[in-house]
Amino acid sequence: MCQLLGMSCNVPTDIVFSFEGFRRRGGLTDEHADGWGIAFFEDHGCRIFLDYQPSCTSPVADLVRNYPIKSRSVIAHIRKATQGAVSLANTHPFQRELWGRYWIFAHNGTLTERPDLTGGRFQPVGCTDSEHAFCWLLNMLAVEFPESPSLPELHGVLDKFTRYLSQFGTFNFLLSDGRALFAHCSTNLFYVVRKSPFSTAHLSDADVDVDFSRVTTPDDQVAVIATQPLTDNETWNKMSASELVMFIDGKPHWLAR
Amino acid sequence: MCQLLGMSCNVPTDIVFSFEGFRRRGGLTDEHADGWGIAFFEDHGCRIFLDYQPSCTSPVADLVRNYPIKSRSVIAHIRKATQGAVSLANTHPFQRELWGRYWIFAHNGTLTERPDLTGGRFQPVGCTDSEHAFCWLLNMLAVEFPESPSLPELHGVLDKFTRYLSQFGTFNFLLSDGRALFAHCSTNLFYVVRKSPFSTAHLSDADVDVDFSRVTTPDDQVAVIATQPLTDNETWNKMSASELVMFIDGKPHWLAR
Repeated sequence: MCQLLGMSCNVPTDIVFSFEGFRRRGGLTDEHADGWGIAFFEDHGCRIFLDYQPSCTSPVADLVRNYPIKSRSVIAHIRKATQGAVSLANTHPFQRELWGRYWIFAHNGTLTERPDLTGGRFQPVGCTDSEHAFCWLLNMLAVEFPESPSLPELHGVLDKFTRYLSQFGTFNFLLSDGRALFAHCSTNLFYVVRKSPFSTAHLSDADVDVDFSRVTTPDDQVAVIATQPLTDNETWNKMSASELVMFIDGKPHWLAR
Repeated sequence: MCQLLGMSCNVPTDIVFSFEGFRRRGGLTDEHADGWGIAFFEDHGCRIFLDYQPSCTSPVADLVRNYPIKSRSVIAHIRKATQGAVSLANTHPFQRELWGRYWIFAHNGTLTERPDLTGGRFQPVGCTDSEHAFCWLLNMLAVEFPESPSLPELHGVLDKFTRYLSQFGTFNFLLSDGRALFAHCSTNLFYVVRKSPFSTAHLSDADVDVDFSRVTTPDDQVAVIATQPLTDNETWNKMSASELVMFIDGKPHWLAR
């Protein structure tokens, strides 16, 4: 399996603290040593750093630690290969463009069946079930919405397609177009929302802490989403099975049922 | 304007030597200081490093120098903004997926008119003429070829579409799907092919040389393509206006006329 990390904020924020704990799970405090990747939205642009070396020792991960990129939407992934060889083409997160926006996707879990992509405009480059599912989702969205829908509309339709794919296996994922970050839980996904009054957080995977009150303003709001909680002194919310939360500006939104 | 750098090889090769000279033109030996990017194909996968800092001082460029990535197809670009603000979304090279392959594109020049993209599956994220042209090319290719054509077929059709776009301005570009690297010259594009017997090359932009005979095998073949020659003791071929050369495994191919 793999591990996911996401961040949604109302002001550009660096993810150095969370990434420092997360990357250690890539071969040091955990076994997810088959590559890793992280995508940062910066306005409409997006840059992805990928490596098939373990994140705990990767020189690219050192860069990400030493060159704090500020972003309002981040998705990271460390891989323990279950389907597909260890290669760059199979390294999450994956990127495509739809409606003039970049879309970023990372998946934790395994899908045992792959829906048909015949005739779809998005096709996988590598051979993972994850990229296949991402292409299928985008193909379906492109057919459903010739032009970009509103975010609440998108949330509803994405929920429908996600339920369809979830019948084929474990489908924890993070998906973002830079405006919204969608987090879907099949089995394991937690989030914490940090806002004023900020306090000090301590990593689970390293003896590192940060006093957020010293690096934030009172209006800041940051949501961090992860397969397992990254800190040991904050209350992380465990998402329910089949829950699809849309984070905008660090704030979670749920579907009206 | 901007500068382009490309490399096509028959074995995975690092581009550290050429990049060392090229990056200096991004703010040190030349004025192209409005961001830069480099894309490396590794098998089917591709990773792009982008930065809107000048390449001569960018920490991401330091990583590329210190972590030699071996690739058979590389495209790099340093930007002097003429259309579109300095931002990540406007930083070349651009990436899309078509026929289950990544496509990478970088452009030097300015197009004064933009062809219609209405209804096309590929849409620009940023606001440059370059990304617009890339999307138009891919839209046209996707309509012409529902499935991936042979490389010679692709070469011919790409030449037709390139001639159409060239009427709108200066259109030097590099385009690759990892198998072939297409280099189009409107005004300025040079290439050198290095093969056995290898000799020592000396950079124009830094007092650095490399003896390729020590780092190659007799079967290696490498083509380097650049807006201006990068070395001062090799014979660079100046491409003609409207010439579209397809490099495969370091070997140039021309259209049958």
